[in-house]
Amino acid sequence: MSEKSILDYETVDLDDGDNSVVIIDQTRLPGRTEIIRLHTAKEIWDAIYLLKVRGAPAIGVAAAFGIYVLAKAIVKEGGSGMEFEDFYVKFRKQKEYLDSARPTAVNLSWALNRMEQCCLKAGREEGKNLQQVLDILHKEAVEMKAEDIRVCRAIGENGLSLVKPGDGILTHCNAGQLATCKYGTATAPIYLGQERGYGFRVFADETRPLLQGARLTAYELQSAGVDVTLICDNMSAMVMGNGWVNAVFVGCDRVAANGDVANKIGTSVVAAVAKHYGIPFYVCAPTSTIDLQTPAGKEIKIEQRPEDEVTQMWYKERMAPYGVKVFNPAFDVTDHELVTAIVTEHGIARAPYDQSLAQLCGRKR
Amino acid sequence: MSEKSILDYETVDLDDGDNSVVIIDQTRLPGRTEIIRLHTAKEIWDAIYLLKVRGAPAIGVAAAFGIYVLAKAIVKEGGSGMEFEDFYVKFRKQKEYLDSARPTAVNLSWALNRMEQCCLKAGREEGKNLQQVLDILHKEAVEMKAEDIRVCRAIGENGLSLVKPGDGILTHCNAGQLATCKYGTATAPIYLGQERGYGFRVFADETRPLLQGARLTAYELQSAGVDVTLICDNMSAMVMGNGWVNAVFVGCDRVAANGDVANKIGTSVVAAVAKHYGIPFYVCAPTSTIDLQTPAGKEIKIEQRPEDEVTQMWYKERMAPYGVKVFNPAFDVTDHELVTAIVTEHGIARAPYDQSLAQLCGRKR
Repeated sequence: MSEKSILDYETVDLDDGDNSVVIIDQTRLPGRTEIIRLHTAKEIWDAIYLLKVRGAPAIGVAAAFGIYVLAKAIVKEGGSGMEFEDFYVKFRKQKEYLDSARPTAVNLSWALNRMEQCCLKAGREEGKNLQQVLDILHKEAVEMKAEDIRVCRAIGENGLSLVKPGDGILTHCNAGQLATCKYGTATAPIYLGQERGYGFRVFADETRPLLQGARLTAYELQSAGVDVTLICDNMSAMVMGNGWVNAVFVGCDRVAANGDVANKIGTSVVAAVAKHYGIPFYVCAPTSTIDLQTPAGKEIKIEQRPEDEVTQMWYKERMAPYGVKVFNPAFDVTDHELVTAIVTEHGIARAPYDQSLAQLCGRKR
Repeated sequence: MSEKSILDYETVDLDDGDNSVVIIDQTRLPGRTEIIRLHTAKEIWDAIYLLKVRGAPAIGVAAAFGIYVLAKAIVKEGGSGMEFEDFYVKFRKQKEYLDSARPTAVNLSWALNRMEQCCLKAGREEGKNLQQVLDILHKEAVEMKAEDIRVCRAIGENGLSLVKPGDGILTHCNAGQLATCKYGTATAPIYLGQERGYGFRVFADETRPLLQGARLTAYELQSAGVDVTLICDNMSAMVMGNGWVNAVFVGCDRVAANGDVANKIGTSVVAAVAKHYGIPFYVCAPTSTIDLQTPAGKEIKIEQRPEDEVTQMWYKERMAPYGVKVFNPAFDVTDHELVTAIVTEHGIARAPYDQSLAQLCGRKR
C-alpha cells in the first residue's frame, strides 16, 4: 500500500459545495495529518491566529477563500432582495475581522484588500448583482491560489540560479509547501533542485518556540526525499563554521521599501551569523510581500504571542519557573545590510534595495 | 512558613559519614527539588553524563568528591593490609572511568588529575599509609569546593567592573550558582550587582535542547529577586537590536590558548550577534578552564549527544518526524575574535589572548 505523502495534500483549498475553506491543521503535524473545514468567521480567524494555517502566502489564500465563503453566507442570509451596499457593510466587517487575526504578514491584508477591491468594482462600479459579485470573488480567490503556485515556482527558478549542485543550504522556520500552495518560497529552489538531481544537503532550524522547522520543514523535505538535517536554532553558527552551508534561504512576511525583512523570529540571528561566516543570506519573497508603503523595518508591527508558547512545550509540561517574565515576539526584522539578495518571482533584487525593490514592483504591473 | 529558595541548597556536597556525593538533580528543576546521593562509580558517572550535575566547575567538584568516595570504597574493600600500588591501580581505573563521562569540559579531567597527583604524592612519594592518603584526598576535595566559591566571587568582582547600574545583561545556558558551588561564573557579576542594588535587567536564553536557561538560570535568578526575562535563543538579535542589552556574560567549559572558547552550544551564535550589534561579549572563566595545552578551539573535542534531546521534548511528545537526521552538538567553539574579554578570578584578559591568557595563568602560581 503506498502511503500518501504530506506533499500530496493541498495546504489550502476551497470546497465550494460545502462552502468551507479546507486546510491541513498544521499544529498537528507531523504526528497527525488532520484535514479540517472552516465555515464560520470565528473558525477562519482562529485557524489563522492559532497557526493551523500559517506562512504568509498560505494565509493570504486562506483569507481570500475565507472572505469568499463568508460573502456567500452573507448573501444566503440576506435573501434574494439584498442590496449591494447592505451586503458590503457586512462584507467589510468580516474582512476587518479576518484582517485582525495576525498583524505582521502583509499577505493577509493584501489578499483581503484585493478581494475587497474586486467586490467594490463588480458591485458598486459595474452594478453587478450579488450572485455575479460572488462569482467574481470566487474567480479571484481561485486565481490567487493559482498565482501563488506560479509565483513560488518562479522564485524557485530564480533561487536555483544562486546555488550549485551539492551545496549545503540552511533554512529557518517553514517557508515550504506547507506555507504556500505549492513549492514554498525558501524551499522552492530546494524542490526544483531535487527534481533535477542537485543533491542539496539542507539544514533545518527547528525554530522555537513553535518548532515549525522541526515539525513542518524537516517533515516535508524528508517526505520529498531531500537530505535534511534538523538542528536547534543555536547550532547555526557551528554548521556554518564547519563549512557545511553555502547559502541561507528564508521566506518573509513583509519586506519594507528599504529591504528590511520581517520574518519568523530568529531570522535576523541567522542573518548576522551568516554575515560573520561570509555566507550569502537570501530572502525568498513573492512581490506581494514587498510593502513599498512601509519605508523601513522599524515601522513594522511585531506580533507578541502568549508566554506559554515559551514556558510550556505543547502545553503539557512546564519547563520554566512560574511567574518568570517572558518575551515572545513571533517575528523579527532583519536589517537590509544583512540581506545578500531578495529573490522574487520577477527577478533578484540586490542593494540598494530602495531602488531595486521599487523597480521589481514596477515590473510586475 | 518561609520556603527554602533553590539558592539555599548546596549544588554539590560531600556526606563523609554516608560516603556519598550529594547533589540537586538538575534534570528535575524547576518543577521538583530532588536531592540525590551518589555512592557508586556508575551512579557518579551517570549523574555527570545525564547532566544531573552540570556546569564545568560543579562537575569538577562533583568528580573530586566522587573519586574520594570511590577511593574510600576501594580501601574498605581492600582491607587493612592493602598496598598503595594495589590501591592506586584501582583508583586510577575509577578515575579514568569518571573522566570518560563528558569530553568537553576541561574541569572534569582537571579535577581528577589534581586528585590523582595528590594521591601519588602522598602515597608513592611520601609513603603515607592509605588512611592518611584518604585524609589528604578528603582535604583536597573540600579545598577545591572552597576554592570554587572564592574563584566565582573574584570573577564576579572583576565582571562587575565591566558594567554599570541599570544595564541590560544577556546570558546563555546556565553558568549560575547551579553550575558551580556558589555565585556561578557568568551570573557572579549579576549576583554581586544584585547585592549592591545595581538593578540589572537580565535576559536568559532558554538554551535548547536541554533548556538550562529556562529551567535553571531563569529559576535561580528569579529566586534571587533579579529582574530576569526568558527568551528563546533565536530572540537574542531582537533584544540586542532593541537596545536592551549592554553586555553579554557567558561561562565556558574550556578556553584554548588563543582565546577560543568552548561553551554550551549556541554561545558562538550569541557572540556573532553581539558583535553585529556592537555589544561586548564577556566570557567568565575560572583559570582552571583555561587550557594552555590546547592551542586553538578546533582541537577541542565537541560532545555529540542523543538525537532525541532535539526530536522529543522531555521524552514525552515527539515533535520531529521519525527517521529525520539530527545534529546535536552539546558545545560549540566561539572564535577569539568574537570575544571582547575573558574574565577570570585573577583579572581580565583581552586580545591578544595568546599573551594575556599565558600571563594570567602564570600569575596564579
